[in-house]
Amino acid sequence: MAFLRNAWYCAGWTNELSDRPLGRTFLGEPVAMYRQTNGAAVAVGGRCPHRFAPLSMGKVVDDCIECPYHGLRFGPSGACSHNPHGDGAIPKAASVRAYTLAERDGIVWIWMGDQTLADPRRVPDMHEIAEQQGWRVIRGELKVKAHYELLTDNLMDLSHVPFLHPFLSNAEALPADYHEVRSLKQEGETVYSLHTAKNLPMTPLFAMLWDGETPAQGDLRANMRWEAPANLLLDVGMVPPGAPGAAGPSLPIAHLLTPETEHSTHYFWALARDRKVDDAQMDGILHAGISDVFKNEDERMIVECAHMMDTNDLFSLNPVLLQGDGPSIRARRLLRTRIDKERAACEAIR
Amino acid sequence: MAFLRNAWYCAGWTNELSDRPLGRTFLGEPVAMYRQTNGAAVAVGGRCPHRFAPLSMGKVVDDCIECPYHGLRFGPSGACSHNPHGDGAIPKAASVRAYTLAERDGIVWIWMGDQTLADPRRVPDMHEIAEQQGWRVIRGELKVKAHYELLTDNLMDLSHVPFLHPFLSNAEALPADYHEVRSLKQEGETVYSLHTAKNLPMTPLFAMLWDGETPAQGDLRANMRWEAPANLLLDVGMVPPGAPGAAGPSLPIAHLLTPETEHSTHYFWALARDRKVDDAQMDGILHAGISDVFKNEDERMIVECAHMMDTNDLFSLNPVLLQGDGPSIRARRLLRTRIDKERAACEAIR
Amino acid sequence: MAFLRNAWYCAGWTNELSDRPLGRTFLGEPVAMYRQTNGAAVAVGGRCPHRFAPLSMGKVVDDCIECPYHGLRFGPSGACSHNPHGDGAIPKAASVRAYTLAERDGIVWIWMGDQTLADPRRVPDMHEIAEQQGWRVIRGELKVKAHYELLTDNLMDLSHVPFLHPFLSNAEALPADYHEVRSLKQEGETVYSLHTAKNLPMTPLFAMLWDGETPAQGDLRANMRWEAPANLLLDVGMVPPGAPGAAGPSLPIAHLLTPETEHSTHYFWALARDRKVDDAQMDGILHAGISDVFKNEDERMIVECAHMMDTNDLFSLNPVLLQGDGPSIRARRLLRTRIDKERAACEAIR
Repeated sequence: MAFLRNAWYCAGWTNELSDRPLGRTFLGEPVAMYRQTNGAAVAVGGRCPHRFAPLSMGKVVDDCIECPYHGLRFGPSGACSHNPHGDGAIPKAASVRAYTLAERDGIVWIWMGDQTLADPRRVPDMHEIAEQQGWRVIRGELKVKAHYELLTDNLMDLSHVPFLHPFLSNAEALPADYHEVRSLKQEGETVYSLHTAKNLPMTPLFAMLWDGETPAQGDLRANMRWEAPANLLLDVGMVPPGAPGAAGPSLPIAHLLTPETEHSTHYFWALARDRKVDDAQMDGILHAGISDVFKNEDERMIVECAHMMDTNDLFSLNPVLLQGDGPSIRARRLLRTRIDKERAACEAIR
Repeated sequence: MAFLRNAWYCAGWTNELSDRPLGRTFLGEPVAMYRQTNGAAVAVGGRCPHRFAPLSMGKVVDDCIECPYHGLRFGPSGACSHNPHGDGAIPKAASVRAYTLAERDGIVWIWMGDQTLADPRRVPDMHEIAEQQGWRVIRGELKVKAHYELLTDNLMDLSHVPFLHPFLSNAEALPADYHEVRSLKQEGETVYSLHTAKNLPMTPLFAMLWDGETPAQGDLRANMRWEAPANLLLDVGMVPPGAPGAAGPSLPIAHLLTPETEHSTHYFWALARDRKVDDAQMDGILHAGISDVFKNEDERMIVECAHMMDTNDLFSLNPVLLQGDGPSIRARRLLRTRIDKERAACEAIR
Repeated sequence: MAFLRNAWYCAGWTNELSDRPLGRTFLGEPVAMYRQTNGAAVAVGGRCPHRFAPLSMGKVVDDCIECPYHGLRFGPSGACSHNPHGDGAIPKAASVRAYTLAERDGIVWIWMGDQTLADPRRVPDMHEIAEQQGWRVIRGELKVKAHYELLTDNLMDLSHVPFLHPFLSNAEALPADYHEVRSLKQEGETVYSLHTAKNLPMTPLFAMLWDGETPAQGDLRANMRWEAPANLLLDVGMVPPGAPGAAGPSLPIAHLLTPETEHSTHYFWALARDRKVDDAQMDGILHAGISDVFKNEDERMIVECAHMMDTNDLFSLNPVLLQGDGPSIRARRLLRTRIDKERAACEAIR
């Protein structure tokens, strides 16, 4: 199955780029990224056109990336800028692709398709997890050996939480007046998987972050937003029963999924909080806890499912669908339509 | 090459099943096994039809297996018995296969084919390795990365012993009156690879188990019985020269081979003895010795051969056949006939 | 892509062969090698025709190799010489290939093609790395997960040295009168990649080996000789500026590349020196240094390139070629012509 190419994908965090090249593979293409002296971020094809060495193993010289094998240099445009051999003439064909990057909200976004279509104004808005006054942000990254849509499915149906993450959930001890609603909402091409729970017993996570006296129960919101191809933002928070949204801690979390290949995914996540923002120990507790849940519960399950499926074509397996699958199936269908359109447009040009 | 489906395969030992699910793959199909509260053993398809999670990673609730991902439950019949989401309606298609199990002689047998044909009376008789008065049984299991018929070949031609297991053999020091006979016998669809040796110098294994004064040499029997698809029983024992069968130790050993995939095999073995039955140290010595021989000699060689062959189709390689190959080739041909018949019957129905 | 079959390949070092079989795979074929009692080296097909066990795991008995599984023995001609089973009759088809070996300069050469064409007089001349008076030789071996021509490319274009091996090079500190020439020479079917550098600052390697006062700079020669399919000899040495070749240390080094498969290569190397020949510590320093450079710099880069290429067909990727690629491309084309000729001759016979 093809990737959506004309789209912004997360390539990493802004603080990961420096004058030391960083190599990653996106959509099956090796990419080398670095910063110029003026701070501008650069992304070029990661494979030297001479002997196919990985440019990311080279170094940055004069704002160009130097091949670690025979020393050809390539500038931010992807053109070869220096040939240290023979008469130094630069062969016409000596160039690599250049990819448009955009930096916003602490995220480096990359455009993998037709570069003339890259519009920085259409970069997904993830301001909730940007560094800002009154908030604290922690970040992480996993490499998951599964197709990225299996991760989208996981995130768009959080009804898995009581089963896959029993320690995050209070499913065993729900009071008589507990009431939850899960729903699907679509706005344009944005899909929401909405979840609100009234009178949920206080969870350990929110108890830890609460200011002042912790109520015995509260109202939870956990609303996931999806934009193609696979950039998600979860607005999660808890307030005393019936109170407005700001009356308790907010924990927005971005889930940015970038296919490495058909069978592996870069999973970048960032969590912001508006409580105990100067508490470095809390940073550590949250980072360790989230990493543990993602790695040992979600990732493990997703990789097992990928192995059991043995195909990336979910529908070919005739899955039994439940109410909670609505949002993920909607997202899958919107994405499929976008990919089909992109391919049709491509073929029309040929 | 297809598997024989309408047959009893060893799925494990009776004491392996409990209210905690056990997951294994047989004939390429993932299976989840557990016990109900009343002790009855259950085997169902191991892949949830919703999002294809491995059911064996779930837990048993009310005699049903609960999916570890989103909590669907499936009963012993394979039908979904509980949907914790939305209005709780159970989709019609929500079911997994149910497999017939039979427990006998400490073995859990599974029927992988047409369940209406599963006849517990046709379970292979392995009473020799069942727990019984005057006998002691030890058991083990290996996973071998090779086609199961290569293991059958290994077991049906024990003329490999002096070469592959020099420490088990006394080939170097055979007396003038030593005499051995190897022969093939077929009864119905059961194949025997028979081996008797007269005046064999006492082996370290039998010396260890002997009651009273150990004779310098003895008569050995090592008769392997094969039933399709790959359930073998070796009747091995030694007696003083010319004495009847009960005059020395008996060491029957079951070799139960169940294909995991085309390229890997579950190898279950059980060894019974009628000497030193209360000697726990002897248990340890025998278990360690057998595990070592199987793992470091047989398994290693079989995996090397599988690698050298690079196909499961032995005959396509035109093997040079020797006298000792008679029983294994007979077994291979009987099995092939059964598989061909089964497939023909299948196609006749379509 | 086919291998050149009618050619001498390095199979190992003469001191590696003994009465204990050595198993290696060349051109995709498993081979078992050993020495007869009279010292003659033997190479036969490494796969028993009975049950396909690896003969190299067996032992040598009466100048024959005995299969480790069921004990068939094969003599130096490849014919089965002993069947320990049944009536001992030897099946007609029981034989393996026999390969012609030649020993010269401490190297065991093997002829993988039509054995009637094996001519020991055409064994490559590597006398520079043979044990001889006034010289000291050290040897090593690597297994590289890449097609052998990628290693040829690496060796035939040493312009990679300043980039891949910065610590071996003085590229940063070249004097004004530094002058280097790289050129290509072909004599018959032998290709040379020649490199001379005048007034090169003394390198740590040559400083270490120098007798008497070390000059501040010198003239370096590094001339690589290639013969098909992939046997290379580097004549490397340094002398005081303008002095003749014998005025400084010589360090000839053989690079003998034998394909194991399409995707892996046996890389045998031997380094001779004519200075400090009795200094065992120098042996250790040189061996460790070379192993480190080959393994952590060359091999790592070659394997990365192979991975990035994802094909053995270099030209299908339209590589940008530089001046330094002349010798390697010449070698690739000569080899291709030889392989094509060999295949055409083969097909003409059919």
